Amino acid sequence: MRDFLPEDIRRREFVVGVIRRVYEQYGFEPLETPAVENLETLLGKYGDEGNQLIFKILKRGEHEASGQADLALRYDLTVPLARVVAHHQAKLPRLFKRYQIQPVWRADRPARGRFREFYQCDVDALGSTSPVVEAELCAAVAEALQALGFQDFSIRLNHRQLLSSVLLAVAVPEALHGSALVAVDKLDKIGADGVKAELLARGVSEAAAVGLLGAFGARPGGDITVPVEGLDAVGVEAFENVKTILRLTAGTAAGPRMVFDPSLARGLSYYTGAIMEISVPDLAGSLGGGGRYDNLVGMFLGQAVPACGFSLGLERILVVMGERGMFPPALQTTPADIMLAVFDPGDVVHALRVAGDLRRAGLRVLVYPDADKIGKQIKYADGRGIPFVGILGSDEITAGTITVKDLAGKTQNIFEQTAAGAAILEVLKHRG
Amino acid sequence: MRDFLPEDIRRREFVVGVIRRVYEQYGFEPLETPAVENLETLLGKYGDEGNQLIFKILKRGEHEASGQADLALRYDLTVPLARVVAHHQAKLPRLFKRYQIQPVWRADRPARGRFREFYQCDVDALGSTSPVVEAELCAAVAEALQALGFQDFSIRLNHRQLLSSVLLAVAVPEALHGSALVAVDKLDKIGADGVKAELLARGVSEAAAVGLLGAFGARPGGDITVPVEGLDAVGVEAFENVKTILRLTAGTAAGPRMVFDPSLARGLSYYTGAIMEISVPDLAGSLGGGGRYDNLVGMFLGQAVPACGFSLGLERILVVMGERGMFPPALQTTPADIMLAVFDPGDVVHALRVAGDLRRAGLRVLVYPDADKIGKQIKYADGRGIPFVGILGSDEITAGTITVKDLAGKTQNIFEQTAAGAAILEVLKHRG
Repeated sequence: MRDFLPEDIRRREFVVGVIRRVYEQYGFEPLETPAVENLETLLGKYGDEGNQLIFKILKRGEHEASGQADLALRYDLTVPLARVVAHHQAKLPRLFKRYQIQPVWRADRPARGRFREFYQCDVDALGSTSPVVEAELCAAVAEALQALGFQDFSIRLNHRQLLSSVLLAVAVPEALHGSALVAVDKLDKIGADGVKAELLARGVSEAAAVGLLGAFGARPGGDITVPVEGLDAVGVEAFENVKTILRLTAGTAAGPRMVFDPSLARGLSYYTGAIMEISVPDLAGSLGGGGRYDNLVGMFLGQAVPACGFSLGLERILVVMGERGMFPPALQTTPADIMLAVFDPGDVVHALRVAGDLRRAGLRVLVYPDADKIGKQIKYADGRGIPFVGILGSDEITAGTITVKDLAGKTQNIFEQTAAGAAILEVLKHRG
Repeated sequence: MRDFLPEDIRRREFVVGVIRRVYEQYGFEPLETPAVENLETLLGKYGDEGNQLIFKILKRGEHEASGQADLALRYDLTVPLARVVAHHQAKLPRLFKRYQIQPVWRADRPARGRFREFYQCDVDALGSTSPVVEAELCAAVAEALQALGFQDFSIRLNHRQLLSSVLLAVAVPEALHGSALVAVDKLDKIGADGVKAELLARGVSEAAAVGLLGAFGARPGGDITVPVEGLDAVGVEAFENVKTILRLTAGTAAGPRMVFDPSLARGLSYYTGAIMEISVPDLAGSLGGGGRYDNLVGMFLGQAVPACGFSLGLERILVVMGERGMFPPALQTTPADIMLAVFDPGDVVHALRVAGDLRRAGLRVLVYPDADKIGKQIKYADGRGIPFVGILGSDEITAGTITVKDLAGKTQNIFEQTAAGAAILEVLKHRG
C-alpha cells in the first residue's frame, strides 16, 4: 500500500474532480460507504479466489483471542451499493443514480501497477431496465474520458445473453462456454489458428470451433450485423438490445466510440445483459468496464432491482495520463506561490501580517519560520519550486513595502505591501 | 459505521473544500496514507486503552488460520505522519507542512455522535521549533473556521512545561500532577469549592489546592500575566513562548480568538510545548485541538524532528453547522437541475441529444429512462426536488423546441432547444 505525496494527490484530485463534474451533469449523486463491511456481506460474492483476497478483521475485546474475524475491508464498490440499496430502500428514490469514488482493498500479491489499496470509480443506475440507462452510462464515461483529454479510446459493447446464444448456435455445449471464451479471448495474441487449436484442445468440436471463429473472427468491427445465423429468441432479443443502445448513443459523446464486439465476455459472473469495456491502443487490459446486473441487489433485498453500472480504473487512468503527459501544466506542484523570508525574529510579526494580505489577494503563501541565513532561505524556496521570495527588512517595514525576488526571472522589484498580491498574481497568470 | 448519502457527502465536501483551500493558502500540502498500517507501527502509541480500540487485520492465506493479526486500521493521522516522515525522509523537504483529511477507525462502543469510522482533519508543520509555526497554525485554523461561518469560537492556549512548572510552584508533587489536572478540569462544572474538595480528596494539600485555584481560578481570561509566582526556569521560558505566540498571532485571523488558559491540559501524552484547543459556547468538548510534539517522529526515525499540529473534528463541525443552519442554501441537494421526460421510446434519442446540449450549457440533467405516464415522471422530479421538467413530444421535436415546466412556479415555457440551457441557468441563478 502506498503513501500519497502531494503531487500524487493533486493528480488524483484533478482526475476525480473532472469525473465527478461530468457524472453530476448526468444526474448521478455521490454515495460513500464505510471501509469496513460485515464479513458475511462480502463472503461468497467474489468467488473462491475473491474470498481468499478479502482482508478480514479480528473480533475485538474479549473475543479477540478467538482469532476469528467478523468484519472485512471493502473489496469493491458494487456489493456495498447492493447492501445500501437494500438497507436504505425507504430513503432512496425508486430510480437511483449514484457515483462512488473510494479505495478498495485486496490481499493480492503486490506487483508493478497493482496495489493492495486502490481507488475504484463507479457509476451505477438502479431501478430501470431501459437501454437509456446503458446509453447514458456510456455517454457519461465517454464524456469524462474526453474531458480528461483521452481521444483514442473505444467502448466495446456486447450482451451476455447474445454471447450465450451465439455459443449455442454454433453448437458449443453449455458446459464448455466458459472454457471456450477463455480461448477466444486470446484472439489478439495468438491469432485465429492458435485459438482454433486451443478450442479443439478444450474439447470443442471442429465444426463448433470454425463456427465460433466465423462469428467472432472479424472483431472488433463497427458492423452491426448479427454475428451468426440461427440465434434463439433470447439471442435475437439481446441483439436488438445491443442495436438499440448503439442507436441511442449515436448522438452522444459515446457515439463515435462505440464498437460492437460479439466476443467481449467480461469476467464477473453477475452480469445479466449488456456488457461494456473501454480500451486505449497502448494499454494492455482496459481502462474500465461495466454492464447490467439485474439480480445482484435481489440477493440482499429478496426483491429484484434492475441495475447497470460502469467502473473506471482510476490507477490505470493516472498511469496512462502520466506516461502521455496529459496533466495540465497549471496543476499545482509547488507548495506555495511566494515564500516570505525572515530576517529578524522581532520583525516576523510584520511578515505574518503581510502574509495575511497576500493570502486575501489569492496567493498561497509560506512563511519561513526560522531566521536562518537569507541564502539558505532562498535556496529552500528554489528547491521547492516556489517562484517568488518576499523580503521584509527593516527598510521595507518602515516604508510599507516588500521586495519581491523572482527566482525564475532572477529579477527583483519593490512593491507597496498592499499592491504586491495583485502584481504577483498577474505575473503568475501570464506564466500559466 | 455509516453510509454517507448524497446530502451528507455534499456537506462534508463543502467543509473539506473550504478547509483545504485555506490550508493551501498557508502553504500546507496534501498528504494521504493507506488505511492499513503494520500493527506494530500503531501498538504502544495510544496507551493501553488505545491498543484495545485498534481494529486488527488477520494474516492472509495459509497464515489466516493462526488467528494472528499483522496489520491494523489507521487509528489517527499523527502516527502515520511520523512514519511517513521517517520513511520518505529523502523525498520530503526539511521543512514539511502537510494537511491530511482522511477517515480513522476506532473500535469504540458506538454512541450518539460517536462513530467507529470518522474523519480527521489534521494540519502539521515539521522541521522547525519556531513559535511562528504555532502562530501560523492558529491563524490557518481560525481562518478556516471563519470561512465556514464560525464567529464565536476561541482558541485556548497553554504550554505543557508551563503547566508542570505551575503545579510544582504551588507544591503539587509530581506524582499527583495528572490527578490534580483531572480535578481542575471540572472547574466549569462543579465550581471552585467543588474542585478544592476533590483536590483534597485526591491527596493534594490544602495550601497547594488554594495555590492551584489561585493560579487557574480566573480561567479563561484574556490576561497575559504569569499564573503564579515562583516558576522555575523551564516555566519562565514556556511562559515567554506563550507570550510570543500571542504577540505573533495578534495581526492574524487568530488574534481576536486567542485566550491564554493556564489550566488547559490536553489529554495526549506526546505534547512537549504549546497546546491549543478550540471551543464554541454551545458545544461541550472542543471543535479541535493541537500542540507541539517534538519527540514523536524520533520514535520512528531515531533522530528528533520538531513538529507541531492541529486537528479539527470534522464530525463535530458538521454537527454544529447543521444545528445552526450554517450550510449555504446553494449547496446542491437535488440530483439535477432539469429532468427530461420520455414520451415515446422511439423519440428518446432526441432527449439524449438535447440532454447533451443542456449539459454543455452547464446544467445537471437527468434523463428519465422509462416511458412511464407523464404524471408519474413529473411526480418523480417533484419528489426529488428537481426544479424543471423538459418535455420533448413530437411537436417539439419537429419544431426544434422544448417545453420546460417550472415545478416551483407552476408555469411552463417553450424554448428553442439551443437556447433552453442558458435561459434555465439564468432562472436558477436568480433563485440562488
